[in-house]
Amino acid sequence: MFNIKHQNTIESAVKANHERAFYSQYPEHPKAYGENAAEQGEARYKDLLQKPYKQLLQTGETTWAGEEVSPFTREALGITYPLFTADELVGRAISAAPQWRNTQVDVRADILVETLESIKERFFDIAYATMHTTGQSFMMSFQASGPHANDRALEAIAMGYYEGNRYPASLIWEKPMGKTSLQLKKNFRAIPKGVGLVIGCSTFPVWNSLPGIYADLVTGNPVIVKPHPKAILPIAIVVSAIQQVLQEKGFSPNLCQLASDTSAAPITKTLCEHPGIQLIDYTGSSQFGNYVESLPDKTVFTEKAGVNSVILDSVADVDAVMQNLAFSVSLYSGQMCTAPQNFFIPAQGITTAAGKLSFDEVVQKFRDAVVSLVNNPKMGAGTLGALQNENTLERAHNAGKLGAKVILEGQPLVNEEFTRARGCTPAILEVGSEDKHIFEQELFGPVLLLIKTKDTNESIQLARQMAQQHGAITCAAYTTSPEVKEKITEEMNSVFTPVSFNFTGFIWVNQHAAFSDFHVTGGNPAGNASFTNPEFILRRFVWVGNREVAGS
Amino acid sequence: MFNIKHQNTIESAVKANHERAFYSQYPEHPKAYGENAAEQGEARYKDLLQKPYKQLLQTGETTWAGEEVSPFTREALGITYPLFTADELVGRAISAAPQWRNTQVDVRADILVETLESIKERFFDIAYATMHTTGQSFMMSFQASGPHANDRALEAIAMGYYEGNRYPASLIWEKPMGKTSLQLKKNFRAIPKGVGLVIGCSTFPVWNSLPGIYADLVTGNPVIVKPHPKAILPIAIVVSAIQQVLQEKGFSPNLCQLASDTSAAPITKTLCEHPGIQLIDYTGSSQFGNYVESLPDKTVFTEKAGVNSVILDSVADVDAVMQNLAFSVSLYSGQMCTAPQNFFIPAQGITTAAGKLSFDEVVQKFRDAVVSLVNNPKMGAGTLGALQNENTLERAHNAGKLGAKVILEGQPLVNEEFTRARGCTPAILEVGSEDKHIFEQELFGPVLLLIKTKDTNESIQLARQMAQQHGAITCAAYTTSPEVKEKITEEMNSVFTPVSFNFTGFIWVNQHAAFSDFHVTGGNPAGNASFTNPEFILRRFVWVGNREVAGS
Repeated sequence: MFNIKHQNTIESAVKANHERAFYSQYPEHPKAYGENAAEQGEARYKDLLQKPYKQLLQTGETTWAGEEVSPFTREALGITYPLFTADELVGRAISAAPQWRNTQVDVRADILVETLESIKERFFDIAYATMHTTGQSFMMSFQASGPHANDRALEAIAMGYYEGNRYPASLIWEKPMGKTSLQLKKNFRAIPKGVGLVIGCSTFPVWNSLPGIYADLVTGNPVIVKPHPKAILPIAIVVSAIQQVLQEKGFSPNLCQLASDTSAAPITKTLCEHPGIQLIDYTGSSQFGNYVESLPDKTVFTEKAGVNSVILDSVADVDAVMQNLAFSVSLYSGQMCTAPQNFFIPAQGITTAAGKLSFDEVVQKFRDAVVSLVNNPKMGAGTLGALQNENTLERAHNAGKLGAKVILEGQPLVNEEFTRARGCTPAILEVGSEDKHIFEQELFGPVLLLIKTKDTNESIQLARQMAQQHGAITCAAYTTSPEVKEKITEEMNSVFTPVSFNFTGFIWVNQHAAFSDFHVTGGNPAGNASFTNPEFILRRFVWVGNREVAGS
Repeated sequence: MFNIKHQNTIESAVKANHERAFYSQYPEHPKAYGENAAEQGEARYKDLLQKPYKQLLQTGETTWAGEEVSPFTREALGITYPLFTADELVGRAISAAPQWRNTQVDVRADILVETLESIKERFFDIAYATMHTTGQSFMMSFQASGPHANDRALEAIAMGYYEGNRYPASLIWEKPMGKTSLQLKKNFRAIPKGVGLVIGCSTFPVWNSLPGIYADLVTGNPVIVKPHPKAILPIAIVVSAIQQVLQEKGFSPNLCQLASDTSAAPITKTLCEHPGIQLIDYTGSSQFGNYVESLPDKTVFTEKAGVNSVILDSVADVDAVMQNLAFSVSLYSGQMCTAPQNFFIPAQGITTAAGKLSFDEVVQKFRDAVVSLVNNPKMGAGTLGALQNENTLERAHNAGKLGAKVILEGQPLVNEEFTRARGCTPAILEVGSEDKHIFEQELFGPVLLLIKTKDTNESIQLARQMAQQHGAITCAAYTTSPEVKEKITEEMNSVFTPVSFNFTGFIWVNQHAAFSDFHVTGGNPAGNASFTNPEFILRRFVWVGNREVAGS
């Protein structure tokens, strides 16, 4: 028997996965990690700049390249990473596989929790790396790439531990045969599918990659981590930490390799189509995601794009609602896959506890709430962060050219700490329910559409249609009517979209909590995978049962 | 709260699914069902002949057709079935869906167990219908289409019940926020994917269709049952029984419809490609199965063809082994998807407890065992049954033309009860390990290939390669060496093929027991689905979680 150091942690996480009540292994408050942790992390981050990244333990001679630029300073990080061919990466993964495959799932889970503990020591290094590659504010960088990502990883480990132990390793099967019986010895083995590839995105390089990385590893598959070439450092630090623990435990660091590349010479498609790759996790655009999903003979998990809706029907406290929504749309400048984009508002307005508000009054209240937040020097820049890339900035700048009525133009964002930061305040447009050509596309970044509908029924019907045809990860709805609530639930759930009702205060539709909220349902075009439902784990291995005549 | 009549049955089945020890709800001995049950069933079967089949409760005016012919009597059954268009079938399924979808999984499971109890009352009607459409012997017809199929159905119901209750229907999520806390009410719903289609085959029209039918129904999806036009009656009786119970319980019989068609005007592809169909279960040829798997936007479960291997290395009692294998290959004339086809035997022969046997001696022993079984008047016809169709007969007749050394020619099978039965004794051929063009194809029916290999290592390597490239559902292996056993296990499991070691006596590699053995692993080209692993259920619905501010 092995001594499973983190048994309690794993079993608590298994329980949390089932119960779905509040649970967190890694506190989300930076202060929980010690007085000087942030400062030390920043120093370590700065030490990495302007040189080759030498912390990886994966083997092989190589060339080096890097092209990361901080969205806050607009300066190159100057870090280079080792480049490998797909054949080199896959070959090393295959060589490393047998020892890991033949290690029982309990031990794999234990070692993987140990890697999370090691990553925890680097939370602040990762936070600064995330900030200066993605444009997330410091607080979001810390939480999303640190404790929240680790919690999601632990969730996947726990699901792997649970499912990997679902069936007995061995048993005696005894069939009664009249006065005698027939006995077989049986054993059940969870055979990993092969080598995994996890393709990251430029906005959430850690949070969106950790579930796939840990799901592959806990089920016994080596994993190749392919970051976006503009956001390598955060996940490079994570991969280094994993490799170090694997090596300390006597396993090959090649079980988890970083596959950096460059925009000029990308290797993602070569890796995807490599016959040695069986599993692919992908986060990014729908176009590339559809390509990945179309690959034959691969098991594919995607999170692609969607258009998220807000349905406004009736509210108790309209100001509380508008403040909540203004924060939701401003958070990281609409660059979260969970951010709302399409606001469906009935032409006759909405009812509130303080009386009826006309459509134009609702629009005005929302506009005012956004302006107020954005212009608040203590809130604005810290909430909006920076835009990861120029395309997103241009999309926001050009929102006025979409042909809709401009309620609020995107303006340069004032950021006192980083005066050169790439920023733009939210652009708000008003369109009619007939303007589908405008609102049926994802306008990634700080662009919001207020859609005037005939009534709430039309709002629901359009939100449903968008989710079904173009995908949706979230839907926020505001209603004081139980009947309308039931109808929204039925209609949005029927297209596999979860609904968040009447959020005000310190909870936002953008947030999906590990161990409780599934992130993406997997049922509509926004993606085929879900963090972490059972399928996210089960599709990575195959149950095989062997039998033998007892005593043979 | 509902009163769940079959709660104990369901929970025992859930437990059995996890423990995988011997379990059966429906005894496999015909005598367990009463003295006159067989006779009465035969009479009811005969009453159905030569007239339209009027027992279905599904609605709609229609035309009628039927083309079944008994492989035993070579006479047409003369039964006609109602024909519907894909639009009619799908439209009715969609109309029937909401009530069923909104019924909680416990109640659905309970009603479905009730349908199994109703099917039990028709086990013998179904047995005779199976016999005279598939060519299975009476005993196999009874067991495979009766108790074994019902056990597989219960297994799927139990998995649906378990997975449908995995997450709490509702809960309060409370996040600590310093001295206060934040509360959300959450609910989790298992939303069915849509309308299911279950495509049956001509050899196991009930056994292979029931898991998909019950998996669809227990997860809340209506199902359309598309039988092979040459084997409709067995599943028509099952569908009638299901419809009757559904109607008695206040649900639409259109939740489970029969979609009969004719060879001249098949509707399978129209159904598969219908936008209203979301789920497809398929059993049959690899060619059609690959088409089904390639359909975009469908959730597909397949059991296709494979080439099953026997690896002979070393044995204790060679006669016991040969008797066991002779029975395995003779059972239903090799028309089971689990039947062995390729026998890998080392050129230098095998060791036995009684000394070494040369390759030719092994071949002779196997040939003798087959001849002895086939010519045994008490065993032959009852074991081999009849061939379902002329193609299988021709394949057996033409085996000598494959270019291999003929060890035993297929001969007309003597059947005293049915003198016109379509039958052929097994043809046995000897080939070399270089003759891949012969043994890498499935030769469905009574054709066996004895392959002379350099040694057991080559045997393993070839069996592995066949499974990986062409699929395999079973692998039988005989060895007295623990090292060889370990190697065979590793190699065959690595291509997701289960191994049965050293079977002798009353247990055969062809048999997969419900609640214990997975049928097909889903990991190699023999099929992507497994009866009944968790995926077989989970991919039919989507978990969606809704949230609301508590008290809103």
